[in-house]
Amino acid sequence: MFSTPEATRHSGAQAWLQAMLDFEGALATAQAAAGLVPPDAAADIARCCRAELFDAASIAERAAGSATPVIPLVRDLTELVPAEARPHVHRGATSQDVLDTAAMLVCRGVLDGVLADLRGAADECARLAAEHRTTPMIARSLLQQALPTTFGARAATWLTSLDEAAGALQVLHRQRLAVQLGGPAGTLSALGPDGPRVVGLLAAELGLAEPVVPWHTDRTRIAELAGSLGTAAGALGKIALDVTLHAQTEVGELAEGRSGGSSAMPHKQNPVGSVLVTAAAERAPGLVSTLLGAMRQEYERAAGSWQAEWEPLGELLRLVASAAARTRELLAGLRVRPERMSENLGLTRGLVMAESAAGPLVAELGRTAGQDLVTELCRRTVERGSSLRAELLAEPRVREILSAEDIHRATEPADHLGSAAEFADRARTAHAERQDR
Amino acid sequence: MFSTPEATRHSGAQAWLQAMLDFEGALATAQAAAGLVPPDAAADIARCCRAELFDAASIAERAAGSATPVIPLVRDLTELVPAEARPHVHRGATSQDVLDTAAMLVCRGVLDGVLADLRGAADECARLAAEHRTTPMIARSLLQQALPTTFGARAATWLTSLDEAAGALQVLHRQRLAVQLGGPAGTLSALGPDGPRVVGLLAAELGLAEPVVPWHTDRTRIAELAGSLGTAAGALGKIALDVTLHAQTEVGELAEGRSGGSSAMPHKQNPVGSVLVTAAAERAPGLVSTLLGAMRQEYERAAGSWQAEWEPLGELLRLVASAAARTRELLAGLRVRPERMSENLGLTRGLVMAESAAGPLVAELGRTAGQDLVTELCRRTVERGSSLRAELLAEPRVREILSAEDIHRATEPADHLGSAAEFADRARTAHAERQDR
Amino acid sequence: MFSTPEATRHSGAQAWLQAMLDFEGALATAQAAAGLVPPDAAADIARCCRAELFDAASIAERAAGSATPVIPLVRDLTELVPAEARPHVHRGATSQDVLDTAAMLVCRGVLDGVLADLRGAADECARLAAEHRTTPMIARSLLQQALPTTFGARAATWLTSLDEAAGALQVLHRQRLAVQLGGPAGTLSALGPDGPRVVGLLAAELGLAEPVVPWHTDRTRIAELAGSLGTAAGALGKIALDVTLHAQTEVGELAEGRSGGSSAMPHKQNPVGSVLVTAAAERAPGLVSTLLGAMRQEYERAAGSWQAEWEPLGELLRLVASAAARTRELLAGLRVRPERMSENLGLTRGLVMAESAAGPLVAELGRTAGQDLVTELCRRTVERGSSLRAELLAEPRVREILSAEDIHRATEPADHLGSAAEFADRARTAHAERQDR
Amino acid sequence: MFSTPEATRHSGAQAWLQAMLDFEGALATAQAAAGLVPPDAAADIARCCRAELFDAASIAERAAGSATPVIPLVRDLTELVPAEARPHVHRGATSQDVLDTAAMLVCRGVLDGVLADLRGAADECARLAAEHRTTPMIARSLLQQALPTTFGARAATWLTSLDEAAGALQVLHRQRLAVQLGGPAGTLSALGPDGPRVVGLLAAELGLAEPVVPWHTDRTRIAELAGSLGTAAGALGKIALDVTLHAQTEVGELAEGRSGGSSAMPHKQNPVGSVLVTAAAERAPGLVSTLLGAMRQEYERAAGSWQAEWEPLGELLRLVASAAARTRELLAGLRVRPERMSENLGLTRGLVMAESAAGPLVAELGRTAGQDLVTELCRRTVERGSSLRAELLAEPRVREILSAEDIHRATEPADHLGSAAEFADRARTAHAERQDR
Repeated sequence: MFSTPEATRHSGAQAWLQAMLDFEGALATAQAAAGLVPPDAAADIARCCRAELFDAASIAERAAGSATPVIPLVRDLTELVPAEARPHVHRGATSQDVLDTAAMLVCRGVLDGVLADLRGAADECARLAAEHRTTPMIARSLLQQALPTTFGARAATWLTSLDEAAGALQVLHRQRLAVQLGGPAGTLSALGPDGPRVVGLLAAELGLAEPVVPWHTDRTRIAELAGSLGTAAGALGKIALDVTLHAQTEVGELAEGRSGGSSAMPHKQNPVGSVLVTAAAERAPGLVSTLLGAMRQEYERAAGSWQAEWEPLGELLRLVASAAARTRELLAGLRVRPERMSENLGLTRGLVMAESAAGPLVAELGRTAGQDLVTELCRRTVERGSSLRAELLAEPRVREILSAEDIHRATEPADHLGSAAEFADRARTAHAERQDR
Repeated sequence: MFSTPEATRHSGAQAWLQAMLDFEGALATAQAAAGLVPPDAAADIARCCRAELFDAASIAERAAGSATPVIPLVRDLTELVPAEARPHVHRGATSQDVLDTAAMLVCRGVLDGVLADLRGAADECARLAAEHRTTPMIARSLLQQALPTTFGARAATWLTSLDEAAGALQVLHRQRLAVQLGGPAGTLSALGPDGPRVVGLLAAELGLAEPVVPWHTDRTRIAELAGSLGTAAGALGKIALDVTLHAQTEVGELAEGRSGGSSAMPHKQNPVGSVLVTAAAERAPGLVSTLLGAMRQEYERAAGSWQAEWEPLGELLRLVASAAARTRELLAGLRVRPERMSENLGLTRGLVMAESAAGPLVAELGRTAGQDLVTELCRRTVERGSSLRAELLAEPRVREILSAEDIHRATEPADHLGSAAEFADRARTAHAERQDR
Repeated sequence: MFSTPEATRHSGAQAWLQAMLDFEGALATAQAAAGLVPPDAAADIARCCRAELFDAASIAERAAGSATPVIPLVRDLTELVPAEARPHVHRGATSQDVLDTAAMLVCRGVLDGVLADLRGAADECARLAAEHRTTPMIARSLLQQALPTTFGARAATWLTSLDEAAGALQVLHRQRLAVQLGGPAGTLSALGPDGPRVVGLLAAELGLAEPVVPWHTDRTRIAELAGSLGTAAGALGKIALDVTLHAQTEVGELAEGRSGGSSAMPHKQNPVGSVLVTAAAERAPGLVSTLLGAMRQEYERAAGSWQAEWEPLGELLRLVASAAARTRELLAGLRVRPERMSENLGLTRGLVMAESAAGPLVAELGRTAGQDLVTELCRRTVERGSSLRAELLAEPRVREILSAEDIHRATEPADHLGSAAEFADRARTAHAERQDR
Repeated sequence: MFSTPEATRHSGAQAWLQAMLDFEGALATAQAAAGLVPPDAAADIARCCRAELFDAASIAERAAGSATPVIPLVRDLTELVPAEARPHVHRGATSQDVLDTAAMLVCRGVLDGVLADLRGAADECARLAAEHRTTPMIARSLLQQALPTTFGARAATWLTSLDEAAGALQVLHRQRLAVQLGGPAGTLSALGPDGPRVVGLLAAELGLAEPVVPWHTDRTRIAELAGSLGTAAGALGKIALDVTLHAQTEVGELAEGRSGGSSAMPHKQNPVGSVLVTAAAERAPGLVSTLLGAMRQEYERAAGSWQAEWEPLGELLRLVASAAARTRELLAGLRVRPERMSENLGLTRGLVMAESAAGPLVAELGRTAGQDLVTELCRRTVERGSSLRAELLAEPRVREILSAEDIHRATEPADHLGSAAEFADRARTAHAERQDR
């Protein structure tokens, strides 16, 4: 429930195995280009770097002894290649070079899907912002009804947060997924003077960025990734929270298209998608915290903190992938109920319009007298179970200042939406501009 | 111990008060520019927006009832300004507009110092990378001696991480510290059609970015800030961890310039600066986690999660400020002991050079025979308490292949530093290029 | 907003200073009892251990250099006592002995208040459980109306969680707040063979537990405290969340006695107390995480992780103290609105009673036929805007089985409360039994 | 790498499936005992509740739609039982009843192993404390050599923390693993007046505790479990950190029995076990934080926070299980090197004995004069590369007070171990007493 098929495929055992093999193959190819490895040997190695030629389970089993799957993997790969190529397998590299580079490849695979779903979800928000730019809805503050807004303005808030979260992830995707190659001491001593050149060739071969220096114990790129994934999770979680709240039986303004039914309780429309997004979003901050805490790594290679990154990074990727995919889906199917929004706007019988109504009275009577008058009429509305509009119409002191038409306008939510529609438009414009880039 | 005087000044009660008043003053000025407020009233309001005219303690006391200091602040400000200006105080704004904008101003003040200290610390790393680009030191993996590197290469790792962490914070500082103005429902309904224009004017007035839409419950910018501060804390913590480890009595390769003395134990050179940086770094991830967790905010205005941001954001800023300042200071005063680095390189009596020594033997005898021979000599070194070099010189099978000079070169750490110096240079170059931008 | 006056008093700078002095005084007294210090010297020292005789600000300022306030404190205390007593000040102790013991005394002071407020809050829940044991209310699952329960059953859930959280804290308060005394190496070498005896005397003197061995780097007691405080925060946060949700304009079943008013929006009844409890509760897990992460402390005395505990422990105590006090207060003033609960029970026009109504039909017609019939009537209820009761009464297939009275009973929420009242009673009984212990 | 075979078995998909079926079987049995279900039907149901009769993969696949595996499971079970028993399957229960009870059964299974390994690890510590109660070792503070202690005293610290962590988990294991049964609204409305009685019978049947009330949204027991697991992880992590530090090439006082070899670097003795324990320990606090954060669950049944518990609880259990098992194993095979401890004690050439040496001089010359003299001799020791003992012997002012024998004793670490051995004994005694209980 907390992944997508695609994310699972890109971050599962087989994907990791292939990513490690991609590193080994590209390393040989890069070293051949640098003249360090005979081209034939490099070609032989690259040809053998296919996951289906390896026994993932056996490698996993042999990994525990040395706390790394790379040792058995390199052993199996060495056996697989022709004898002449053997001395050139994994040359100059250390286990962490393989695993860190593989992690970057895995991240790239999952992030492609995450970015597509974040953008897809943002597109849905843009559609909702357009469709409902003037659909009146009560704005709520501290879960209390406040003043009117539009559902389009809310969708604009969602849209902007998704665009910003996706934008930050996109930058990392382009710039910060870097190859790792340093050898056991981060000096590439086995490659003589060609180390940095091989790093560049390897990066080009794999389509990853070239780091300034080996980053075995500089985990800023992992931390940045964690922070941005955590931000995306939060943005998605906010949407899910809103949908869950709007879908409450007592509110009923939104419903998920594929609400989870309950045979025992036919009236329930469980916001199942939102619930799962919420669960994913709640789990992200703890994982980000673990990844940030793991940055303090000793000397040239860490004694535990690096190993602590492995599973949490994968989990965080899958959680955000599932949250993004589900949010996109639930937004695509979201049932918006303007009639319930309208009903709820009337729930306080006009009290939410008290501020608007006070405006012209304050202008005429002064702040204190104007506000006091409205406050009195509000109290009367509550006591009598009438409406603020009715009380305004019935009050002589008001009628001296305002006509019936004035009163209608002052208490009509649709006439007091401020810049809600304009904000909806601004978010859509910004979204469109991002897409163009 | 967990702040700097500057960070405390920029984020203390008085700084917050002034930042809130800066908002109120700039709001009036912006509304005057938009023609919504008489210029004289705006000037009167702006003139009164000076923290020293207010009683911070009294405001704090009255804040608890409504869970916000803005209500008493606006009351006091309204009383302070001339009667004609009163209707124009805080016009169209809501409490969160004031507090969010003030938070951005506080962040800016503290971040200025953080960025200066991160860059200053990076400059010190660049100096160390230059001075020690060829100073041999043992690289350690899992806290075990591994192969030679240089202290300059290590400083390069520190440098790169600081540059990257500072770079990310710098981008946020420039682009993401945005004004907040939405009014109670995020619609700016009280400003008629001029809302978005006033937002732009207010942003210009305060030197903050203009957001696409009000961000009352879109907390991506807070989350991004948290993530980047957490990343910076981790990068600083890694340096402090290394210094602490290098300063161990048994290692003794580094010492802080102002080590905390212990009268009872005169031989101790407590790495006090590093210890405090470590403590600050350990506290950051939990705060980041809290800020990410607080992103899920309800509807237009949150019922708790927004309030949960206030103190943790300030703490995170102060912790990172103190960690950056202390790291800069400790790097500036760092005592590097190449002689202890050299001694430690010899601690295994050449065993750390086994891989280098094996190279020419493997080339001549084949991998298995060559490695076996070296492994045997290593064992003999341990048993006899001799050195690998001595055993190589004494072994006829080796001498058939290698001259005494060959053996000396093969076991001399300074001749097996790989690209350590080049990596040190690359980090310095990248640092210099960043500065130019 | 995130503390109580009492918690601030018990954990502020002055309280810490006094707690450290309490340690120094009690240490001298204990050593006198063990015959290690002349009784007069001990009496002189104890007499000087009063916070008002010291300059807290000056001590704080001098603390930064050595990363501990104990060095300047001991210096000032030594100067204060008569010359003959000086050699006996702080004898055999290390800084961490003072600070850890002081932390335990501070914890005790704050926990007394926390426990009183948790119990007070539980008493209010017990009262609500009694008063509303049969007050019908809709139970909600995934924020969707589900089946009837009583408000007393809900209060019982709150009550049980508070009792359990308080019970765990109570056990720690009694058993785990222990004195710390080990000297610089944890061996009490300066006390000759009397070390352990002095530990026992010191514990008795301060009313703290005697640890098995010095716990300088065994932080299980801090971790347990953190875990239990985090649990209490969660239990309090659940209550606040419920109150906030029940207080929604659209739900309206609960209101805080002292709702934060909004002059601009007179209809709003902001659940200010709950909002602040929520904010406090959201901040606790990150602090717990920091304290657990800080358990991995090096050798005999830590290089950073211990220092990382100081402020988070204090914050966690204050947050839980404020959450407990506010929850107690808001429960005491809670306005319960049975009429709104009743209205909301009817919101689905009987659909929430579908399961109850299905019971007798299933019994007669078999599961499939019975359920299908009810599902059909539910659909009809929705289409016609009628009520399930009306549809049941109108449907001949139903009337063959059920009389009008049967139908009334089957669709009457108050007749389908299951064991709600009994659960309310069980929680109250368990609460009363705890009090007796 | 981050689980044990046993923990994986007790918490894997198959274990969950069986635990859910155990609930369903026991529920039928309990209801039969209460007279609500015919004994034959209950027996039929119980007979079918065997995991091997179900298709776990198919259930998992069908789970996503409703966000719970219970719905397809109950469907499959219902089909499996004889027609007469079908109406009695899952009677009165809700999905969360099944999953929460199953979670408790899974916890019990994993905790059995965790407790056995924690106790086994503690036994090893007790053995080490006994064997090395007087083995001199330098105590280190802030990673600086401080004063002598014994390795037995350190083992005593480890022992006490493991005993305390295990003790707390043991209490939870006995008292807090409770059955869950409340039905959809927590009222057990479908069981008429027999609800609470069935809960008691079900608890007895499964060997779990009987809760006061249904705990669908009272998550204190989960939080307590999380806190105690986090505490255990921290205690284990502290041991692993110490082993890693003691195993440093430059320290060399401890080595793991099965150190991970590195063919390329034969001198390395990688503390692989400790590294994996460290990684597990670093991941625990983030998971605890997630579980505490998930306590705030809405109304009668949560919309996301409950779902957020599922995977983190399982992971936390597995991480602690693996850390406990590995720690036990590494302690059992730990190679202790008293000769390296002795060498390291001499590393400062007596400076660590300065405090002891100062004692008799201070007694004779007064504090200032005595300390100044020793400080001068320490400086001389450093300058001359001699030893403190040699300088003491050579200094006439010292020789007036101390004989050669006095000086030897004053500078002999083994004579200044304070109560180290006694603390080792106290920890062992406390451990033995715990076992008796």
